Amino acid sequence: MGEFELLDAIRRRLPASAPRVLLGSGDDAAISVPGGVTATSVDALVEDVHFRRGSGSLQQIGRKALAVALSDLAAMGAEPGEAYVVLGIPGDLDEQGCMELLEGMIDLAAETGTTVAGGDVTRAAALTVAMTVVGHAATAEALVTRSGARPGDALVLTGELGGAAAGLLLLEAGAEASPTRGSPSRFEPLSASNLYGGRGGAVESALLARQLEPRPQLEAGRTLAELGATAMIDLSDGLGGDAMHLARAGGVHLRVDASALPIQAGVTEVAAAAGREPLELATSGGEDYELLATLPVEQLDAVTAALEAKGTRLTRVGEAIAGEGVEIRLPGGGNLQPRGFDQLRWKASQ
Amino acid sequence: MGEFELLDAIRRRLPASAPRVLLGSGDDAAISVPGGVTATSVDALVEDVHFRRGSGSLQQIGRKALAVALSDLAAMGAEPGEAYVVLGIPGDLDEQGCMELLEGMIDLAAETGTTVAGGDVTRAAALTVAMTVVGHAATAEALVTRSGARPGDALVLTGELGGAAAGLLLLEAGAEASPTRGSPSRFEPLSASNLYGGRGGAVESALLARQLEPRPQLEAGRTLAELGATAMIDLSDGLGGDAMHLARAGGVHLRVDASALPIQAGVTEVAAAAGREPLELATSGGEDYELLATLPVEQLDAVTAALEAKGTRLTRVGEAIAGEGVEIRLPGGGNLQPRGFDQLRWKASQ
Repeated sequence: MGEFELLDAIRRRLPASAPRVLLGSGDDAAISVPGGVTATSVDALVEDVHFRRGSGSLQQIGRKALAVALSDLAAMGAEPGEAYVVLGIPGDLDEQGCMELLEGMIDLAAETGTTVAGGDVTRAAALTVAMTVVGHAATAEALVTRSGARPGDALVLTGELGGAAAGLLLLEAGAEASPTRGSPSRFEPLSASNLYGGRGGAVESALLARQLEPRPQLEAGRTLAELGATAMIDLSDGLGGDAMHLARAGGVHLRVDASALPIQAGVTEVAAAAGREPLELATSGGEDYELLATLPVEQLDAVTAALEAKGTRLTRVGEAIAGEGVEIRLPGGGNLQPRGFDQLRWKASQ
Repeated sequence: MGEFELLDAIRRRLPASAPRVLLGSGDDAAISVPGGVTATSVDALVEDVHFRRGSGSLQQIGRKALAVALSDLAAMGAEPGEAYVVLGIPGDLDEQGCMELLEGMIDLAAETGTTVAGGDVTRAAALTVAMTVVGHAATAEALVTRSGARPGDALVLTGELGGAAAGLLLLEAGAEASPTRGSPSRFEPLSASNLYGGRGGAVESALLARQLEPRPQLEAGRTLAELGATAMIDLSDGLGGDAMHLARAGGVHLRVDASALPIQAGVTEVAAAAGREPLELATSGGEDYELLATLPVEQLDAVTAALEAKGTRLTRVGEAIAGEGVEIRLPGGGNLQPRGFDQLRWKASQ
């Protein structure tokens, strides 16, 4: 199957475009009617850098590629619109594999109201999925950048932390547990079945899903934007690093109360088995794709209630004060220094 | 240098954004105010698929990546707006190399009025440059798709053909001429200096530039759109294949007069030295990035004059008639069957 046949197969599989997309895939360019202003972000997943084939399904890879891109739109409070994909296909991935990857992407696109409006396919040495996503808002003021935090703002967080890092440890443990001699594990082999009585355990499944099927917090992002968030970022690199982006962009100091951080169920056990600290996974692990935002304190109750009504937990984890930096205060006194958890991930947020 | 330092270096180098871009690189997403409707296209260049490092400079690679993406906007008649880049960096490309590549991209962005508004960098096995470009138009009707050709329309072409393919042959000849035993050349070693008296020859330089520094025909595309082109496409895959896209999308038969095709100076000589036909390079070589359009016959003189005033040659190369297909009529009778010239290029237009 050549490129044109594959592109035709992909185009046939794409659902109908949203009304905003006047012309979808198949011409020199897609034509779209934006709704006021656009928010555009790009993100790429590269095999053996951001994922390993075999750790998850091809559907999960396609789904995750779109999810991490949409997560940037969530962090702006934008409404998702169009997605454009560059698929770099290695020689050992056949047409069926490409279509499986696309299925995962299309599923998430349908769930989020995103139109896959165009793309390019090319051969590549390693499986590569580069996504560009375009979101919409009525005005620029309706969007939330990283730079608006003000001293006195509350620092809030959606959902729970550490799950994606724990999921990665579980995946790596499964890989390391295979009888490969001469390459010592970075941590004790950790069979998932040791922890939770088999691969079907709900807690373990939730951790794996956090790593393999992250969810962009689009609705929470729009709610936060509508109800007065002053700055917002998605946690792709980890709480420590991403908080630093907010602190630098806004010229504020962010004080995080480590004891307030919501840690996902199972993270503590996985961290212990791997000889790591749960807080390390929660603050440096990255890839949880929750939203970290600053908010005037008087808005806190309204936002918390609005998100709770939609099933999203919001936790106040700290505050913005004068200065410029980030500190994560430990319960017993002292500060945690977040550090890079996974040197393999060399991902840059937009 | 880590990812963040490289991103910072890139951001510092980017020129100021156009007024349309309210927020450029450095946040979760770029914010832009579109001008009516948008035309969006993606294109990726991958090392050893679309280019070889060493055949040209890193600046040329960066420049070409943006050029081929903008060429799709030219084919819509859109005004170029924003560009977003995913840079996949192999281990043997250092920071300086990345910045050189970016310089080429920025140069062309400045020449065309394009704002590089965001991007992502990642490690990759092979140098990869994926571009998303967004163009603007007041209304969808102001843009030209592939599908509007009508029987009776003239088939017109900007510029000249075959230069990019001849340039590639010259580059390959240079590579093949090195003393590699056991891998017979696909054609006789062809030293550029044999043909034109040294690497400084203007004809040869022009052929190499066609391959290494293609120019998107943005102004010609807008002129064609304004003056009534009914369908348009850029020649990335070659006249034969790209004409077929127009024919299928419009439901017309395109009859091309081979003797009318404008062949770039030097193509005939390079083809002869390589044991190929000039017409093969002109119709199947691809990468000339000229525009092929259909046009009501009564518009022909006005468009030709308008383009000539801007220094762009327009040639009537055939016509659209009822039916569905493409034929390239040879002077002596019979038809040319265009075929894939370069199996290495597995590029799909948008």
